[in-house]
Amino acid sequence: MMAALILDGKALAKHRESQLKSAVEALTKAGSEVPTLATILVGGDPASATYVQMKQNACQRVGMDSVKIEMPEETSTEQLLAQIEMLNKDPKICGILLQHPVPAQIDERACFDAIAIEKDVDGVTTQGFGLMSMGELAFGSATPAGIMTLLHHYDVPLAGKHAVVVGRSPILGKPMAAMLLNANATVTVCHSRTENLAALVGQADIVIGAVGQPELIKAEWIKDGAVVVDAGYHPGGIGDIDKTGLAERVMALTPVPGGVGPMTINALISQTLESARIAAQ
Amino acid sequence: MMAALILDGKALAKHRESQLKSAVEALTKAGSEVPTLATILVGGDPASATYVQMKQNACQRVGMDSVKIEMPEETSTEQLLAQIEMLNKDPKICGILLQHPVPAQIDERACFDAIAIEKDVDGVTTQGFGLMSMGELAFGSATPAGIMTLLHHYDVPLAGKHAVVVGRSPILGKPMAAMLLNANATVTVCHSRTENLAALVGQADIVIGAVGQPELIKAEWIKDGAVVVDAGYHPGGIGDIDKTGLAERVMALTPVPGGVGPMTINALISQTLESARIAAQ
Repeated sequence: MMAALILDGKALAKHRESQLKSAVEALTKAGSEVPTLATILVGGDPASATYVQMKQNACQRVGMDSVKIEMPEETSTEQLLAQIEMLNKDPKICGILLQHPVPAQIDERACFDAIAIEKDVDGVTTQGFGLMSMGELAFGSATPAGIMTLLHHYDVPLAGKHAVVVGRSPILGKPMAAMLLNANATVTVCHSRTENLAALVGQADIVIGAVGQPELIKAEWIKDGAVVVDAGYHPGGIGDIDKTGLAERVMALTPVPGGVGPMTINALISQTLESARIAAQ
Repeated sequence: MMAALILDGKALAKHRESQLKSAVEALTKAGSEVPTLATILVGGDPASATYVQMKQNACQRVGMDSVKIEMPEETSTEQLLAQIEMLNKDPKICGILLQHPVPAQIDERACFDAIAIEKDVDGVTTQGFGLMSMGELAFGSATPAGIMTLLHHYDVPLAGKHAVVVGRSPILGKPMAAMLLNANATVTVCHSRTENLAALVGQADIVIGAVGQPELIKAEWIKDGAVVVDAGYHPGGIGDIDKTGLAERVMALTPVPGGVGPMTINALISQTLESARIAAQ
């Protein structure tokens, strides 16, 4: 068997950033303001702080602005809602990222859903999820949206294929399943309560690791010739999928790191530009 | 093998109607107005007219009012939106049913989504779908909501079981998949583009026929001991599932008619009462 195609999210994101940079220049030359993303980080989780910084850096690389809002660990739901409301009303802000997760005392769903739909460039609102699921225009959740861009770029066949999504979180597994269904895949959603997970994963033409557990999905479950997408990232560069020996026998796979992560950020900034374009019309 | 358990939607709906009738009496005795459902029928499709009439009859049986709005075949999107807006503002109306399908010149999605979420007792808005999918409070789409009530009533085990939904329409297949996932089933969504449909249906612990094609799903595909739910209804009392011999070898099945249909209407009127209760608080 040939070596697996590497779905190189890092390279694709870099390529797309050069296109985004030109598009931002064209937009501002045409008289629009520089697109601005507001990021909200609540509390001091170092990993979250790193993710937010990476998103801001990406904005900078393509010539967009970003505004960094940092709120203390003890922030209340009401305080966060008030902050989001201010950003919703601020005409300079065309996208709002509320970094997940927020501290436990905050009603994350209420705060996500408070983001104005036209500024929901990270695709976290239930309204956006509903619209996207029904094939209507809406920004998709950034990680699955980035994965779809990656799969399309490499012409991975989806229509009629059996995609098995392991995980059902609001911003990853559920929207991933909806996007794959919109692309005419047959979609199975597995999760912690699934019986015979190994057998289901073993049927997949496309496996999506979206469970948030290090190497929970075993290499030996995955069939030869599958497409393997790993959306997990754990300390030490480990994903949700154990990839032992897969490179020699699957059709394609995403590396960790350098696969899904860069595409998540790319989806976020692409959608921020798209929001700015819509606002400029 | 024992004979299959009949999931008797007709009997369960009748039983639940007697409970609903008492609840409506209690609500009005406590000083609330009689709950009122507005039904909108656009055009002259006889099957749709029958469905609307059945829903109005059900309201009457439980002591609720209904208001019947009939609009001509040539109604425009704007005219229908204006009608919905009037009903949204009318404090006497606690639920709005827009009978699907509407004539082709109308943007059905726009009209569904114009229904105020608190009056969306038929569960057709993208906002309601998004909230329900994320486990938040919202009225579910009536047919899958009725199916869930039927499955729960007969204590059909769902958690960890493999449910295969055949069909992915906005008001049936997609919300059915989301509700089964919320009930901790492992869920596969199949559709017209699915390769090896027979093999996938053959794995199902629970099969949901939601495809709208007469007997597209063959009896021989279905494994012994499965639970078979048929949401289809076609002329001559035929469903989406060919049931030849199933009664002798599956665990449970819904009859057509008398299975899913009565539960759909029951979900609609239950949710209308629920809307009235919330408004009365």
